[in-house]
Amino acid sequence: MTTPTPPGPPSDRTRVRRYHWLAKYDRDTINDIIDAGIVSQIGYVFHGSPFVTPTCHWRIDDCVYWHGSAASRMMKTLDQGVPVCFTVTHLDGVVFSRAAFNHNILYRSVMAFGTAELLDDADKKAALAAFTDRLAPGLWAYARPPSEREWRAVKVFRLKLDEVSAKVASGLPEEDEADYATDLWAGHVPLTLTQGAPVPDAKLKAGIDAPDFVTAFRYAGLR
Amino acid sequence: MTTPTPPGPPSDRTRVRRYHWLAKYDRDTINDIIDAGIVSQIGYVFHGSPFVTPTCHWRIDDCVYWHGSAASRMMKTLDQGVPVCFTVTHLDGVVFSRAAFNHNILYRSVMAFGTAELLDDADKKAALAAFTDRLAPGLWAYARPPSEREWRAVKVFRLKLDEVSAKVASGLPEEDEADYATDLWAGHVPLTLTQGAPVPDAKLKAGIDAPDFVTAFRYAGLR
Repeated sequence: MTTPTPPGPPSDRTRVRRYHWLAKYDRDTINDIIDAGIVSQIGYVFHGSPFVTPTCHWRIDDCVYWHGSAASRMMKTLDQGVPVCFTVTHLDGVVFSRAAFNHNILYRSVMAFGTAELLDDADKKAALAAFTDRLAPGLWAYARPPSEREWRAVKVFRLKLDEVSAKVASGLPEEDEADYATDLWAGHVPLTLTQGAPVPDAKLKAGIDAPDFVTAFRYAGLR
Repeated sequence: MTTPTPPGPPSDRTRVRRYHWLAKYDRDTINDIIDAGIVSQIGYVFHGSPFVTPTCHWRIDDCVYWHGSAASRMMKTLDQGVPVCFTVTHLDGVVFSRAAFNHNILYRSVMAFGTAELLDDADKKAALAAFTDRLAPGLWAYARPPSEREWRAVKVFRLKLDEVSAKVASGLPEEDEADYATDLWAGHVPLTLTQGAPVPDAKLKAGIDAPDFVTAFRYAGLR
């Protein structure tokens, strides 16, 4: 019986250098980390300066998507085909180690590089409907549909997940043999996102109940 | 009685353009958002490409700090005085709106720009002790102290919080008058980080209890 070779890094840029034993290059792990979050960080260069903008993202097949105002700085920059770095990070816990410098966090992260592509109108509409139904499943059919002005004010970008890697720190780092032999405690404290009960808008008209898709809502990132 | 003018943006780069009514420029708000997280995103430019690297951070007075391996790509780049963008984002909920395009998230974020400064050895040691005690208060005194080799393998950078702004989306966006008049439900589902019970390392020697600073640990970002 042969063990399949695990997938390697697709490019030098995505080869994980630090703590490389935490690296994951298989698509299922990468997709799960992307899908477990709705907020990513889009990095781009504008007039020589790095910008890191928190942005809602969603994935369809092997692409990630994000939207923004047609007038925003990020959107104007990306429109010119500037390279981007897409990063998603989930914090899963805090590590208490035997050696002071092994203190760390538990996390899952994905980093992808490429050039973002601006969607045309038809693709934009399909992608935004998918985004809305991912963020709040059922909302697209329930809510007041966008006006033509609202459609025009938004742009959607797509990044193909070609150059992509993940890092998963799910346990304690290896410690020195001498440290294992001590009577020092080591372990971690888990951190997880939890969801509260729906909170009605202060301006909600009296007598309107939350629809089923709200009461049944379960955030994608809950573990 | 006069109302004090709220602080404005310290530079054009930090002037919030999109949803500018969510912008906060006062230092207390900015510090609270930075201190409520331990994972930030450091953006920098390497060979013309943007890189966004998730990194543990901590704050002392009006500076944020982060550490990394002396051999890492980010550290080598920053060593040359490359400009950085430091971003922290906390997800607080998902918004269900009356208008489909007002779907959104609740969040708090901080973005800071500047050039990171490499610490000398004395400052590095003080900063790393502060980091360890912030991540896991009490760990620095309890754990096995770093060896000289471990000290040499780590670098610490500092960014002064001069060009900095925050964005806080704590409620629903304003909707159109016509939408308020409908019978559509609107509100949000809160999301918060919660902390689980300490989990001992699988390699922990038998009979070692978690020290008080672990059982009393409370993650800074809990609300």
